[in-house]
Amino acid sequence: MKLYDFAAAPNPRRVRMFLAEKGIEIETEQVNLREGGQMAPEFAAINPWLTVPALVLDDGTVIRECVAICRYFEEIQPDPPMWGRGAVEIAQVEMWQHRFELEGFLGMRDALRNSADRLQGRAMTGPVDVEQIPALAERARSQVERFIAELDGLLADNEFVVGDLFSIADITAFCAVDFAGWVKIGITDDQTNARRWYDAVNARPSAQA
Amino acid sequence: MKLYDFAAAPNPRRVRMFLAEKGIEIETEQVNLREGGQMAPEFAAINPWLTVPALVLDDGTVIRECVAICRYFEEIQPDPPMWGRGAVEIAQVEMWQHRFELEGFLGMRDALRNSADRLQGRAMTGPVDVEQIPALAERARSQVERFIAELDGLLADNEFVVGDLFSIADITAFCAVDFAGWVKIGITDDQTNARRWYDAVNARPSAQA
Repeated sequence: MKLYDFAAAPNPRRVRMFLAEKGIEIETEQVNLREGGQMAPEFAAINPWLTVPALVLDDGTVIRECVAICRYFEEIQPDPPMWGRGAVEIAQVEMWQHRFELEGFLGMRDALRNSADRLQGRAMTGPVDVEQIPALAERARSQVERFIAELDGLLADNEFVVGDLFSIADITAFCAVDFAGWVKIGITDDQTNARRWYDAVNARPSAQA
Repeated sequence: MKLYDFAAAPNPRRVRMFLAEKGIEIETEQVNLREGGQMAPEFAAINPWLTVPALVLDDGTVIRECVAICRYFEEIQPDPPMWGRGAVEIAQVEMWQHRFELEGFLGMRDALRNSADRLQGRAMTGPVDVEQIPALAERARSQVERFIAELDGLLADNEFVVGDLFSIADITAFCAVDFAGWVKIGITDDQTNARRWYDAVNARPSAQA
């Protein structure tokens, strides 16, 4: 199998961290998003959404989207469990992974894609060109700030996002916090819970993946 | 346990359909979103995101978000499998459920909340009041139209979203198509694959849940 990846992009980083936590190594191919590599016909044939990551299995099946790729690897190698242990914890991991994807990652997507000069006309991913909406970029910045505040509050009582389990929800939140730095949003000095957690996650070898 | 629900809202409908397919009946309580029931302090204490559905377990644990609630029930009652059978199908269900949530449900959320008179100042869910962005409503309408077109193309080769398995991805897509009717978007006459599939899903008893 092969993972289509771009080392500088925050979404594929989620998959790389997940794989590093599992101790899984696979072949990767870089798709340079800054040079429009995702628009190349060869890649569009693999993923018509024109996004990375995309995982191509040996039989040619393509799995797109971070969460789906991570789910595939959780199924074929359950240890260490990254998606919860038992129904309640599994539901909590799903809840927070989903929450932080929507508020953190999609908030950042909207904040960045609707403001960056180099993304003019490319405010949404995919084959259709879409103009930026500056008001959305502003609104999304506030959303990202609220995401980090919520994360800080949650971590007042928890070592990780869901209790003492390092999970995919932590990976999503951690990569979203680093992504927020692209628009100069980050953990503030008074968000000490988020800071303590960030430093702990950042010290894991997977954070360098 | 108890499910906080609102019969007229498309998101809790996804959970109701999922439970009906599983043959699970549980206590529900209606939170009238049209009368601001989600803002009541009693409900805000259960779900500070001010959204339904929310599931409260017997020990008081609250599971929020449709996908997390459905995941909980998949874990405690795996049959019939609604999230795939085997690693590849599980990944494909995750991929399409995720895709149709983002393009269909979140597209509709943006199209509706940024245009409806009754949602002025409430363009996002949650405790913070947010002004509408009309340009976003327009952009999101196109996104929803593309969602239905993609669904139609996918169903040219498949009985359901993922092969012959009726899954949570079908539920998400089906509820999103009905939700699109709120802004007068629907399956067009030439989208015959989507129409065939819609009629088949609509004939299932769970579609009335």
